Amino acid sequence: MSATSQTITLPGPLPLDGGGELARVEVAFETYGELNADRSNAILLCHALTGDQYVASAHPITGKPGWWERMVGPGKPIDTDRFHVICANVIGSCMGSTGPASAAPDGSPYGMRFPVITIRDMVRAHVGLLDALGIDRLHAVVGGSMGGMQALSLAANWPERTARVLVIASTSRHSAQNIAFHELGRQAIMADPRWKQGNYYGGEAPDNGLAVARMAAHITYLSEEALTGKFGRNLQDRDAKSFGFDADFQVESYLRYQGSGFTRRFDANSYLYITRAMDYFDLAEEHGGRLADAFAGADARFCLVSFDSDWLYPTSESRHVVHALNAAGAAVSFVELSAPHGHDSFLLDVPALDRVIGGFLG
Amino acid sequence: MSATSQTITLPGPLPLDGGGELARVEVAFETYGELNADRSNAILLCHALTGDQYVASAHPITGKPGWWERMVGPGKPIDTDRFHVICANVIGSCMGSTGPASAAPDGSPYGMRFPVITIRDMVRAHVGLLDALGIDRLHAVVGGSMGGMQALSLAANWPERTARVLVIASTSRHSAQNIAFHELGRQAIMADPRWKQGNYYGGEAPDNGLAVARMAAHITYLSEEALTGKFGRNLQDRDAKSFGFDADFQVESYLRYQGSGFTRRFDANSYLYITRAMDYFDLAEEHGGRLADAFAGADARFCLVSFDSDWLYPTSESRHVVHALNAAGAAVSFVELSAPHGHDSFLLDVPALDRVIGGFLG
Repeated sequence: MSATSQTITLPGPLPLDGGGELARVEVAFETYGELNADRSNAILLCHALTGDQYVASAHPITGKPGWWERMVGPGKPIDTDRFHVICANVIGSCMGSTGPASAAPDGSPYGMRFPVITIRDMVRAHVGLLDALGIDRLHAVVGGSMGGMQALSLAANWPERTARVLVIASTSRHSAQNIAFHELGRQAIMADPRWKQGNYYGGEAPDNGLAVARMAAHITYLSEEALTGKFGRNLQDRDAKSFGFDADFQVESYLRYQGSGFTRRFDANSYLYITRAMDYFDLAEEHGGRLADAFAGADARFCLVSFDSDWLYPTSESRHVVHALNAAGAAVSFVELSAPHGHDSFLLDVPALDRVIGGFLG
Repeated sequence: MSATSQTITLPGPLPLDGGGELARVEVAFETYGELNADRSNAILLCHALTGDQYVASAHPITGKPGWWERMVGPGKPIDTDRFHVICANVIGSCMGSTGPASAAPDGSPYGMRFPVITIRDMVRAHVGLLDALGIDRLHAVVGGSMGGMQALSLAANWPERTARVLVIASTSRHSAQNIAFHELGRQAIMADPRWKQGNYYGGEAPDNGLAVARMAAHITYLSEEALTGKFGRNLQDRDAKSFGFDADFQVESYLRYQGSGFTRRFDANSYLYITRAMDYFDLAEEHGGRLADAFAGADARFCLVSFDSDWLYPTSESRHVVHALNAAGAAVSFVELSAPHGHDSFLLDVPALDRVIGGFLG
């Protein structure tokens, strides 16, 4: 659909949770639909780990449709005939917002000199963008997975900036198992000799390591049932096992494809930084250890959605947030949807999700 | 405890499921306890993917105690005062039995010239060992995880060779998710430039890739609850996050330790071959597609044990085998034990398992 692509430079340096600041921050974003006269119909859509701002417009590298075309557009659950939808590439990423591949003040790419950032730092940049756009209060902030973490962080730290908070398949903190899978991916990248401590720009990138990291993550995005239903033990383009190390099984072929396709569009250092931000995420810890205190100032309406087959951020994590919101006296609705796809359900065809989103946005 | 270490050479070449044969096969094994006069008190213990024959004797490389000391010994559930326990390194492995690091007939290491083998090929070598030892019929075959696959394969293919079959935390077939995790590990090894298509013997081994593979596997061995209980979000030897890429979290430090420790004692090519054998394992497929038919000739007593927190080979997989055994008219008992540790429960302190094993062996 019709989109506007823009990049702005924040007016000043961005203070960071780790101390220090990011000197010059660019934020690349897409918008869909018209902002109304009183600037009250804006929805900030927050993307996931390997997502980007191309929600409902073709990806400039892969040419593939936007990652949430089914949800965002005229007459769709996030209706661009009514709402002005903004999706910004998170800082630390690699699709136009400032990240490890960007030029540092000395003119060379940051590489591993890029500071370790947090989810709240990403949201601080989003708030800078909203300031620049003159949007004081959002109609809603919406996000799935890491996007949901950003939505929660905005609600907790800038509660006056949004009237609605929609959090899908997400969590208020990364578990030990979540951290373990990310650490596995980081070690795979760092084990690739092409990584060169992050100084690979202009040369060959550590694509082998990044592909392995993506494969590991991809396994966590699908349920065991989804993998069995989709692939089972089916062989790939052959009648019998090869008794070799080719991708005999469809699931092997699928993972290899996911891994190698990903390296075309994503920067390995960004993967390191964004997974680190996710692992550091613990909204309760940020607010003195009690999650309800994170939402003490919230007057927004909340909606949390989980999927019964999601083992990455299971329903218990959403319920944990709902209990904290209840304790804080916030208005919250919660639904666990039944879908077979696992964590990736939020991106896939789950009509019940469309209805929940459309209904909540009003 | 007191053990006897031996290596025998099978009298002839070993025919393989993939066609062809392995010309010269050595089998390295440990024994514990005395074989009685009528050779009726032998128990074959089958080890798991990265296990070895050092069940109850110190590992020659790491110096650590045997992997099942708690279960095997005088007066223990597998009582070496009564039973003659044999544990053989599987072919394809790297602790003395013929594998990819062994010399091929041309005198150089096989490397990737080693044939792709199956679980049944491993068991065929075990049967060759039993023949050489003059043991016609075992008191029992016992195994956990991949060891359980070997026990099932022996029962299905050489039913006359054992009176009891004890299968712990195992499966009759690898699921798509099981294959996915193994493929991830293989890709990590093959992505390591030191792997060199398997021709790294005498030089630097692909330890980085092997460590990543081990980390991936290790995550699957523990339950989410076990990881949370053991590590949670606890920091490692520090009071605050470092805002860097060190192992801030205990779970990261643990995984790195598991990965790097593993490379000291295991060969990367063996990891490729043994995971492949496991992925190929589908006992029903071997017997015309119906699992019950695999057990048509079985007159042994079976016992299956699963753990409620095991998400690698969940209880449903054991139950699937039990149903097939029921359909085949075999004598089978089944118990799901409650233990928090996940798949690794079979190696850890679960007193109920001791009682089940002791009781079943009689």
